[in-house]
Amino acid sequence: MSAVSIYPVAGLPEIVKGAPLPELVMEGLDRLEMSLEAGDVVVITQKVVSKAEGRVVRLGQVHPSARATEIGQRIGFDPRHVEVILSESVRVVREAPRVLITETRHGFICANGGVDRSNTGGKEMVILLPEHPDESASRLRASFQKLSRVAVGVVISDSFGRPWREGQVNVAIGSAGVVALRDYRGRQDPDGYELQGTELAVVDELASAAELVMGKLDRVPVALIRGAMVAGEDRVQTLLRDPATDLFR
Amino acid sequence: MSAVSIYPVAGLPEIVKGAPLPELVMEGLDRLEMSLEAGDVVVITQKVVSKAEGRVVRLGQVHPSARATEIGQRIGFDPRHVEVILSESVRVVREAPRVLITETRHGFICANGGVDRSNTGGKEMVILLPEHPDESASRLRASFQKLSRVAVGVVISDSFGRPWREGQVNVAIGSAGVVALRDYRGRQDPDGYELQGTELAVVDELASAAELVMGKLDRVPVALIRGAMVAGEDRVQTLLRDPATDLFR
Repeated sequence: MSAVSIYPVAGLPEIVKGAPLPELVMEGLDRLEMSLEAGDVVVITQKVVSKAEGRVVRLGQVHPSARATEIGQRIGFDPRHVEVILSESVRVVREAPRVLITETRHGFICANGGVDRSNTGGKEMVILLPEHPDESASRLRASFQKLSRVAVGVVISDSFGRPWREGQVNVAIGSAGVVALRDYRGRQDPDGYELQGTELAVVDELASAAELVMGKLDRVPVALIRGAMVAGEDRVQTLLRDPATDLFR
Repeated sequence: MSAVSIYPVAGLPEIVKGAPLPELVMEGLDRLEMSLEAGDVVVITQKVVSKAEGRVVRLGQVHPSARATEIGQRIGFDPRHVEVILSESVRVVREAPRVLITETRHGFICANGGVDRSNTGGKEMVILLPEHPDESASRLRASFQKLSRVAVGVVISDSFGRPWREGQVNVAIGSAGVVALRDYRGRQDPDGYELQGTELAVVDELASAAELVMGKLDRVPVALIRGAMVAGEDRVQTLLRDPATDLFR
């Protein structure tokens, strides 16, 4: 197995609704004197995908419900922000001062329903997750294929917290053209012992690896990963645990 | 920010107690015609660190307690394996058929107290986590510094499952010479909005990135990460959430 390289793709302009993200990424690669190669994975942060898709809400136009106001007052959150979070969520998983963990309509369990108030191109705006992140990834992938004539993978990433450990890590919220899980179940290790329960969530590891070159404040919304050998056809949706077998609902 | 590269360091022999891991890693790098450079991060899987430290138990010498036998029968696990898991744990967090999630003495919440039955150099053996993984990382780091005369970071990795999402990801269980969290709290994004709660668990992202070149069955127990610019002095222990503020205990 050979080396994996991760390149930051910087210098993209502020992304607005309808911005041609694939073209902007290709221009970013041009500036690095790079071009896409078959098997490359383009990791793109959720924020720019959502902005390009117009998934932005002005808080001034939000009228919080009684429930949102009550939660907002209880946890110290802007009730308008809470209103948007609830509209993106199917249930509240945990609530604490300045913390609201919900399950999104997609099935992600994360802080604030994935509704982000930072880096939004204006203090009074929030950014929602893409409506269908796997489909967003598919569209991006098709555009890259058209522009570059090679098959690449696309991962849309976001940073999620997790129980028990401090800090967020980048995970995949949408993907196209890559494997989600590397499955070692039923294979035997070199000693003949069958590996049990060993599936690696490669698509999340790609997202985490990309974060190493991104840096939240440097406007590096895209990373190119080369050499990972992860071509496949899984979707992130397949990573979401069946609630029936999830021990932490 | 420049590119990050991840190199697999393969061809290490089967690791036994007392094996000179740092020297074996240096020999692996020699075979790649590489040498350590200042700022490199060496990611080593827990399994070889534990084996070198002799953290291996023969199941034939384990006498399961009544409690271990009861749990083993209930969940379909070898009671001797359960006995070792319980001895490594301070409490059982969740129990289900063929699943035992515990909190280890270190404070990690993971399957089987980190006690692994695969790839152990013999079917009837299990491997325990290092007793003090951060200290193990420090010792390895000191050895690398002595051998190479440059300051590198060391991360000891293991693959943990997580709630809500299928698949395991590599996380850090010990570290030396790297930052654990990149802290963006209190800094302002380009629009002047203060970032809240944004700390990236870089040390876990390094572990995940390394897994991309490891592959469970190929005996690639070590990866070299170059260009990540993550020098620091944090320990993984600092990543463990205070139970008082953890919403998922």
